Amino acid sequence: MAKDTILLDHGAGGRASHQLVQRVFARRLGNELLDPLDDAAVLAAPAGRLSVSTDTFVVDPLFFPGGDIGSLAVHGTVNDVAMRGARPLYLTAGFVLEEGLDVAVLERVVASMAAAAKACGVRVVAGDTKVVGRGQADKVFINTTGIGVIPEGREVGAHLAAPGDKVLVSGTMGDHGVTIMALRGGLNLEANLQSDSAGLQGMISELLEACPNIHTLRDPTRGGLATTLNEIAATAGVSMELDEEAIPVGEGVRGVCELLGLDPLYLANEGKLIVVAPPQEAEPALEVMRAHALGAQAAIIGAVGESPAGRVWLQTAVGGRRILDMLAGEALPRIC
Amino acid sequence: MAKDTILLDHGAGGRASHQLVQRVFARRLGNELLDPLDDAAVLAAPAGRLSVSTDTFVVDPLFFPGGDIGSLAVHGTVNDVAMRGARPLYLTAGFVLEEGLDVAVLERVVASMAAAAKACGVRVVAGDTKVVGRGQADKVFINTTGIGVIPEGREVGAHLAAPGDKVLVSGTMGDHGVTIMALRGGLNLEANLQSDSAGLQGMISELLEACPNIHTLRDPTRGGLATTLNEIAATAGVSMELDEEAIPVGEGVRGVCELLGLDPLYLANEGKLIVVAPPQEAEPALEVMRAHALGAQAAIIGAVGESPAGRVWLQTAVGGRRILDMLAGEALPRIC
Repeated sequence: MAKDTILLDHGAGGRASHQLVQRVFARRLGNELLDPLDDAAVLAAPAGRLSVSTDTFVVDPLFFPGGDIGSLAVHGTVNDVAMRGARPLYLTAGFVLEEGLDVAVLERVVASMAAAAKACGVRVVAGDTKVVGRGQADKVFINTTGIGVIPEGREVGAHLAAPGDKVLVSGTMGDHGVTIMALRGGLNLEANLQSDSAGLQGMISELLEACPNIHTLRDPTRGGLATTLNEIAATAGVSMELDEEAIPVGEGVRGVCELLGLDPLYLANEGKLIVVAPPQEAEPALEVMRAHALGAQAAIIGAVGESPAGRVWLQTAVGGRRILDMLAGEALPRIC
Repeated sequence: MAKDTILLDHGAGGRASHQLVQRVFARRLGNELLDPLDDAAVLAAPAGRLSVSTDTFVVDPLFFPGGDIGSLAVHGTVNDVAMRGARPLYLTAGFVLEEGLDVAVLERVVASMAAAAKACGVRVVAGDTKVVGRGQADKVFINTTGIGVIPEGREVGAHLAAPGDKVLVSGTMGDHGVTIMALRGGLNLEANLQSDSAGLQGMISELLEACPNIHTLRDPTRGGLATTLNEIAATAGVSMELDEEAIPVGEGVRGVCELLGLDPLYLANEGKLIVVAPPQEAEPALEVMRAHALGAQAAIIGAVGESPAGRVWLQTAVGGRRILDMLAGEALPRIC
């Protein structure tokens, strides 16, 4: 029997494309909005502003402890949409497939997307599949674009971070990045490494319910905590002062980072939250996160200052103080 | 001086990524919605339902007579959004870049996107860039996802095509597909071939203003007119009867199709419209299209029948009658 693989025909828009859509995509992702498979989906838009985000996922390898490109493509975009205080509602999914890809691999990825979308309470409402020749892509790339609705009166954004605010994270840093790097390096590690890939919409919803004055929410993905805090500081025109000892890092991650010469503060996270909150909401936010399954190791890691604008300082464990800059010059490609 | 090319660092989310975003993307595509470069864009959502569509563009070659991957990525998604009767408002753009890509090529593509978006009246509100290693992608892939608003009371969709309706096209068939095929085949053709890539939102707006009872709008992209009409017939549970002689095909396209053994009814179009309208609106729709710069060669090409459901018939020029099936088994990869 011929091996069941993706052919160029599957991307040509004709009968083979239709069969692939029915067999792999509609079966798992189907819902009354996607099912018509028209040129565009027609969606109800509840009152309120929209939060929209797009991300293409090219992670290598496709499957890793804690997730795969399918669940990651859902979590990554759901999280970005939620960071503006929105309730994520809809996702689109655009696939680029390499000729020769095993259809069973695609089915596994799509099943994982479907499970993640269900868990996050979002529906895939539109899709597209392209096939390129062997060596013109690497197995599967997935773009997801997410749409959410921001409740009336809610304002959350990097520009709102203000002097006096506290900086929190929802858990350990670097888990996703170090897991992918270790896998790619072929390290046969004792350390029980696992990606933290997860949808944060539930925890964010609880946080904003309890702490309506939170200024900024961001997920420290590519570039890690250090880069994301630099982005917030630059956007808001503030400084930040962090306490290195307060930043949670798992034992396994710390060990592998020492082995590979990596800094966990620059490694990608895919299920962690940075919260910038006014001082009176710092402790309440910490409590909400710690009570949530995804935030057991949440911590207050620093504070926002006035100047110099855009500068992030790190009080090191050994008592020094150094500038924590953006990621520069270290290529960690295809981490998400 | 080192050649100015895309490096893996440009996709790592750190300083190099930021510099690329500022230099190439923000400079050309920037607007007050994109400029904050937060995790997600916050958008005003006017009252009404949303029309949402996603498409990834992998066309090879990147530049062709009549357009390039940048303008195509705007037109393709704007058109899909407009096919549900919506006014396209917002686009997201997700780039996958191959390491080693000449930055000047990317700049040219992004400049073309910016010009096309401006002409179509849409704003790019969110973006993402990933870089993969050499041989893991082919130069540039672009996903665009579009959001439009459908005015109250407007219903346009494939399911509404009804027996008695007339079928119209806005112009010649196959121009985009044959242009790409000829370029890829290295044909040095006398024929002045050019892609028809164009944004149809303006013509559609005029059409729906003049002919509010139009049932279906579709653009015959991958798989061409034949495949798209089969999709409409299957969705609506109707048959169609076409008059081959009435279907406009340019002289140059006809010549190349004969040379290469291609059928223009199966070739992609990127700036053409199929209209299914009740009989009393067929002539008015034809007039509106013919008066528009993109519809000078519009024609009524057939009618909708009752049965057999899903079947499309072609009355051939030589007096025969044959089934016009979906595209099957002919790979025309990377046409869009």
